[in-house]
Amino acid sequence: MSGKIYEKEHQIKYYECDTTQKMTLSMLLNIMLHVSGEQSHLLGVGDEVLAEKGLAWIILQYEVKVERMPAFYETITITTQATSYNKLFCYRIFKVYDTKGNLCVTVNSTFALMNVKERKMARVPDEIVAPYEAEFTKKLVRSPKPIKVDEENMISKEYRVRYLDIDSNRHVNNSKYIEWAIDTLNLEFLTTHEIKRMTIKFEKEVHYGQLIHSEMSATKNTDNDMTTAHRIVAEGVTNCEASIEWKTIE
Amino acid sequence: MSGKIYEKEHQIKYYECDTTQKMTLSMLLNIMLHVSGEQSHLLGVGDEVLAEKGLAWIILQYEVKVERMPAFYETITITTQATSYNKLFCYRIFKVYDTKGNLCVTVNSTFALMNVKERKMARVPDEIVAPYEAEFTKKLVRSPKPIKVDEENMISKEYRVRYLDIDSNRHVNNSKYIEWAIDTLNLEFLTTHEIKRMTIKFEKEVHYGQLIHSEMSATKNTDNDMTTAHRIVAEGVTNCEASIEWKTIE
Repeated sequence: MSGKIYEKEHQIKYYECDTTQKMTLSMLLNIMLHVSGEQSHLLGVGDEVLAEKGLAWIILQYEVKVERMPAFYETITITTQATSYNKLFCYRIFKVYDTKGNLCVTVNSTFALMNVKERKMARVPDEIVAPYEAEFTKKLVRSPKPIKVDEENMISKEYRVRYLDIDSNRHVNNSKYIEWAIDTLNLEFLTTHEIKRMTIKFEKEVHYGQLIHSEMSATKNTDNDMTTAHRIVAEGVTNCEASIEWKTIE
Repeated sequence: MSGKIYEKEHQIKYYECDTTQKMTLSMLLNIMLHVSGEQSHLLGVGDEVLAEKGLAWIILQYEVKVERMPAFYETITITTQATSYNKLFCYRIFKVYDTKGNLCVTVNSTFALMNVKERKMARVPDEIVAPYEAEFTKKLVRSPKPIKVDEENMISKEYRVRYLDIDSNRHVNNSKYIEWAIDTLNLEFLTTHEIKRMTIKFEKEVHYGQLIHSEMSATKNTDNDMTTAHRIVAEGVTNCEASIEWKTIE
């Protein structure tokens, strides 16, 4: 595994936490992306350089493994490394450590470049990836697929895309899909369970004003373990699929 | 004006900004509260000390004046100072400066203590406020009142309170009311106007699962200026009122 490693400390704020005072996964992913954005900027290939070429990074997939979700007021260290790339996909790993050096969260991610005008994926230009010193490989990394929603036993909630759901790419920010997915579960469940693993695949863009359905079905594995399958659907099109493994908070 | 001043630098992240790449007011208020929370913690009267007494800070009012809303990747300095207090209310001022020392935002705020169990306001104990060295005054600070919504010309949008809308006090976080208020305005307006002033008064708690109505009426002052009046209503009760002065983005 090659690629320059960049790291940054972050102090967890109360508004990055849920009612149990643990950091929310959507906020952690936001912060991780800020750290990789900062690495790009420092390497001279920041968003402003991409914008000049009519390009922007988009995220296609996250695989998240949580050992322990950090809590309010902790200081965490986030490391990020571009590991490999091919002509369409760039793979990047993020790790989150606590002050004792314990690994808290690992996230494998797949990025691609979008042609902002055409809203289509673009080939990865050499000069954009060279500074990260990641390995070029013709092999595609096989990512696990999210479990499919069981349509006969699903719960669905409706959400209208709000102004603050969209980002500077003028589409719904990835972290919002996670918020919609998780919100299908009730307060009692969410305050007694925590995320162990999540696989999420972003398929299509969602835009301001669209009405989306967040669909979810659940499977109980053991007394303490549950898996939920999620799908975000807008106008009959699946925009995002995810599955989440949960465990009971001890 | 007495009271110890505490200050902290903050680098603005992309997820703290809207699609115009300027910081959102809701996120700025979140960060300011983190800074005052940190001052309290360092003075030995942090949230954990209050929690032991069954108390928590709540915010009753914000008056916001924006000279220039800072943008993505800027580093800002936030200062906070408890200015005065009486037996029920504590007054605190926040200021936001850019790296050149220009004042960007001023926020006057009114805090109170809530008895967490009874969900009622509590008297301010001397030992809790003494460390801030703010002035005791019997006088109430007269805060401007938000303009009333014109019921005959109002727009209303419905929102269900989500899991991530509630905070560790188990009620809707103040910043969410601002998000609901602003979301009544459309994309075209929000991408061409910015907030100049806001007065917001938080009256009642809103809880998980409640259905709220975000109501808004608008008055055009000049070609470049507009005032909007807002009200957050749940089950027939007004929980929050606000008015916002907007100007056209140049």
